[in-house]
Amino acid sequence: MDYILPLQKLIEQFCKLKGVGARTATRYALSVLDMSEADAAALAESILDAKRNVRPCEVCGNLTDRPVCEICSDARRDKSIVCVVEDAKTVMAVERVREYHGLYHVLGGAISPADGIGPDQLRIGELLARIGEGDIKELILATNPDVAGEATAMYLARLVAPLGIRTTRLAYGVPVGASIEYADEVTLMRAIAGRREMENGFRTNEVET
Amino acid sequence: MDYILPLQKLIEQFCKLKGVGARTATRYALSVLDMSEADAAALAESILDAKRNVRPCEVCGNLTDRPVCEICSDARRDKSIVCVVEDAKTVMAVERVREYHGLYHVLGGAISPADGIGPDQLRIGELLARIGEGDIKELILATNPDVAGEATAMYLARLVAPLGIRTTRLAYGVPVGASIEYADEVTLMRAIAGRREMENGFRTNEVET
Repeated sequence: MDYILPLQKLIEQFCKLKGVGARTATRYALSVLDMSEADAAALAESILDAKRNVRPCEVCGNLTDRPVCEICSDARRDKSIVCVVEDAKTVMAVERVREYHGLYHVLGGAISPADGIGPDQLRIGELLARIGEGDIKELILATNPDVAGEATAMYLARLVAPLGIRTTRLAYGVPVGASIEYADEVTLMRAIAGRREMENGFRTNEVET
Repeated sequence: MDYILPLQKLIEQFCKLKGVGARTATRYALSVLDMSEADAAALAESILDAKRNVRPCEVCGNLTDRPVCEICSDARRDKSIVCVVEDAKTVMAVERVREYHGLYHVLGGAISPADGIGPDQLRIGELLARIGEGDIKELILATNPDVAGEATAMYLARLVAPLGIRTTRLAYGVPVGASIEYADEVTLMRAIAGRREMENGFRTNEVET
């Protein structure tokens, strides 16, 4: 495919975005050409701006444009409970629910020897330092429900066990709104194993204490 | 959804790309944050560069980074035949086939009174001027096979009829490689109406002269 050079270069750059192939990149490049001069400049500027100003929070590792993120600096947040996640995307997902009022800790990945990621590559030392400050009573280990995420949760649970901190894991089960017939076997097995009593006709889904 | 401001702004900008919704824009914004500083700068730069340097060819209206595009300035191209298309994307699609060696004329859209686009909004005057120069013997009207494209082809065919120039239209039919059972009724009707003799066991698909 021989496009004119500036277009070719733009297509290549768009290909670097996650999940964008040549076809989609071409559509985006042409859509940039269709934009107003101002919109194209705003897009370019906001890319530079985000890259320049967004960094990890010094405390929890979440994305922020200040030294300490909004969540960590919010006095109304419950400082006794910390949700441990792999990345900032998971923080956003949990925040979207608007039901969790504790803090977060972003590990920056999960333990995966195959990818050369051991505990030392993750922000685990920082987590232990936070625990050392004495406020934290519970860690919710919200790493992903895959092999690496499980291994990381297991590792962390063992690591903090001697410190007398409660560690919990998100419940496994069938996704709400989905049809049970489409659930995979492992999920269904976990959903059955994790079944709850119905109380007054309602399903309880809290962690047992 | 309250993301931090630079991220929120970047998401909004990505939403301006054709076919990008909030979810996809968020994925792209986060993928910009994962990029190296250099890659993010290159993406921003190539957006500005493309917008600054890509413009319509003075002759045919195709996208180019010079006053006259590569195709129009290529001496090996057959100047007696012009493929009339709605936009530069169609030029790229036809060029990809590597079978067409004539020139192009980009109209910049199709006649669509509902969208307020009449013949005056299209580069039809420019086309007549090119015809006036006397080299052109045939126009291939390759506007899209939809209502607006058909209307435009019809309009152009009538307009140039008195000038003694041959006008042709792309063949309609079932797409190669597709299953006939999935062809819509109009396409199938056109495919039957446009059926060709098999010669020596091969299907001929040239325009009758």
